[in-house]
Amino acid sequence: MKAAMEYVAALPAEALHTFTRSVFEKVGIAPAHAADGADVLLWASRRGVDTHGVRNLKLIYLRLLEEGLLNPKATFSVEHETLVSATVNGGGGLGLAAASWAMRLAMDKAEQSGMAFVTMRNSFHLGAAGYYPAMALERDMIGLCLTGRFNPQGTQIGVPPTFGSMPMFSTNPIAIAFPTDKEAPWVLDMATSLAPYNRVVLYRENGLPVPPQWGLTDDGQPTPDAQLMHKMWPLGGDRAHGGHKGYGLSMMVATMCTVLSGGWDDGHDGDEAAFNGYKQSGDSHFFGAIRIDAFRPVDGFKRGMDAMIQALHAAPKEEGQDRIYVAGEIEHETEQQRVRDGIPLTAVTVADLKEVSEKYGVKLEI
Amino acid sequence: MKAAMEYVAALPAEALHTFTRSVFEKVGIAPAHAADGADVLLWASRRGVDTHGVRNLKLIYLRLLEEGLLNPKATFSVEHETLVSATVNGGGGLGLAAASWAMRLAMDKAEQSGMAFVTMRNSFHLGAAGYYPAMALERDMIGLCLTGRFNPQGTQIGVPPTFGSMPMFSTNPIAIAFPTDKEAPWVLDMATSLAPYNRVVLYRENGLPVPPQWGLTDDGQPTPDAQLMHKMWPLGGDRAHGGHKGYGLSMMVATMCTVLSGGWDDGHDGDEAAFNGYKQSGDSHFFGAIRIDAFRPVDGFKRGMDAMIQALHAAPKEEGQDRIYVAGEIEHETEQQRVRDGIPLTAVTVADLKEVSEKYGVKLEI
Repeated sequence: MKAAMEYVAALPAEALHTFTRSVFEKVGIAPAHAADGADVLLWASRRGVDTHGVRNLKLIYLRLLEEGLLNPKATFSVEHETLVSATVNGGGGLGLAAASWAMRLAMDKAEQSGMAFVTMRNSFHLGAAGYYPAMALERDMIGLCLTGRFNPQGTQIGVPPTFGSMPMFSTNPIAIAFPTDKEAPWVLDMATSLAPYNRVVLYRENGLPVPPQWGLTDDGQPTPDAQLMHKMWPLGGDRAHGGHKGYGLSMMVATMCTVLSGGWDDGHDGDEAAFNGYKQSGDSHFFGAIRIDAFRPVDGFKRGMDAMIQALHAAPKEEGQDRIYVAGEIEHETEQQRVRDGIPLTAVTVADLKEVSEKYGVKLEI
Repeated sequence: MKAAMEYVAALPAEALHTFTRSVFEKVGIAPAHAADGADVLLWASRRGVDTHGVRNLKLIYLRLLEEGLLNPKATFSVEHETLVSATVNGGGGLGLAAASWAMRLAMDKAEQSGMAFVTMRNSFHLGAAGYYPAMALERDMIGLCLTGRFNPQGTQIGVPPTFGSMPMFSTNPIAIAFPTDKEAPWVLDMATSLAPYNRVVLYRENGLPVPPQWGLTDDGQPTPDAQLMHKMWPLGGDRAHGGHKGYGLSMMVATMCTVLSGGWDDGHDGDEAAFNGYKQSGDSHFFGAIRIDAFRPVDGFKRGMDAMIQALHAAPKEEGQDRIYVAGEIEHETEQQRVRDGIPLTAVTVADLKEVSEKYGVKLEI
């Protein structure tokens, strides 16, 4: 096994953006949605979040399209709304575009009302959850995104509840962003599991061992083998290490996304019987936007964020450590470097992109 | 050392409520605030959350009053508000009453507007954070409470940032509640540290060893000695086990409570220079109330919660476990039992209550 990720090429972010957008258009996705999709994937790739970047173009989105699960012609619709809320239907379309639309809806409502939340059912994988709260930063808002699934009959790979032996939750992430003044924007984007499952897959496809503390085999044994790690630990791990809190956060995410949107019965209050069958189509999400000046002037808030971050930077370090980071900081620095030097690609991703390029007749120079 | 908590008496919840309220009135707190304070402490005591129950009457609240830190005559005021938000000043008074007032303000605004958030500065310890979101349940709202501190110059006992050696955060809890139909209300109330510090203190005063995985000594060593455990781990523990996520959640809580409210400079945008000194008075909190029917009919939501809880109850168990719990369920069952059998008290708490009874001339039959 290799010891670290190996990259075989690097491409300019702009070239990859154009390629991704063009491929999405080629498979029938509307230009505006294709552009949103490319924005989300490249945001992750630029920031070093390779688990959620262009690597997933073939692996997730084109696969869902080819399997006929994802409707390229989807439109997104509001099923219920107030001045501060909306329950929306993703139309079974590209989650990257549906989620971008829903986050804009939340921000537009917040612009008028001070804050707004949008819960969305019938969507698909939305990419890096952190992208959506980060959209709120330039509008001087706090942004929020949750995305989650609950599988009552279990799922092959996922997070079991504390004391349970069957994976039932996805790795249901929480993402929140706060604007700053001079410091890098504060962007927390965390699975409520110890590690996101996409990272296990990334390690697997690159022949890397997985840290065994991340999860267990079907038989409940720790394993460094990504092929066998099916039960992901919630944040905290077992009960003695606080895993019931990670499980609690995961269930909170599932509730705000699926129960609140009706994404879990899909009858959306029209079909009483559906609850017994727990029908669930696609993925469900939750978005929030909060105007900072609903509470205090924006400048003071941003200076406060900077002050907190600077105090953390200046604090004494653990032995062997020379920096204290805050959420989003490593990704911010990676972004500056990758915008300059290009997005590094593994051999697996290069092969995938070449295959996509040929299959859909969209040129990409690697 | 003992192996488990030992109780030497049990008192009816009503008697302890009357006593607590009367003592608060005796020290000069307004009757309405005293009643709120007793409500919060007894809610925790009834639910088995002894770390945050009547045990703290002398230990925290009367101590703060006697030290002159807490103003019994405090009034609470709105410094800025919109239809969906408020920034409020706790007046340096009893946090239990200030927080109850702020949560009511959030709910009253949400009643009108669909949802509302309130951030509060200049308050004190608010007891069990879960009490406030639970207030929202009977109004068919989702409730939220955060309370947190950030100490830029460090604090003797607290949570260091990942890779940092100095405790800087309190154990900054997150509490959220969802209403249910027939199942126990879902109430998550969790420190963003592996364990709440109050639990370390409770173990210490009862001569119990502390699980060494909860934290470290000043020198960074694991310890079962509650006297020496000063560095509490964030949820997750070290970096390899996801502790950066617990640290991220802790900083999120600190931001929503202190930076958003101005509780961290206390000049509240009036004093530019204050940021350099990081002036902080008392504690800061954050409350939220969200009407479920801003998204979907309440009945469908509650049935969905029941369905999710029932699916978790029915799921296969880990070896050696016979139940899967959801957040708030153990506390709900404890409440039913304690309402029937009384609140059990340790020898330390009995001695404290007797001392308070004599000192303030408020009768309590133990």
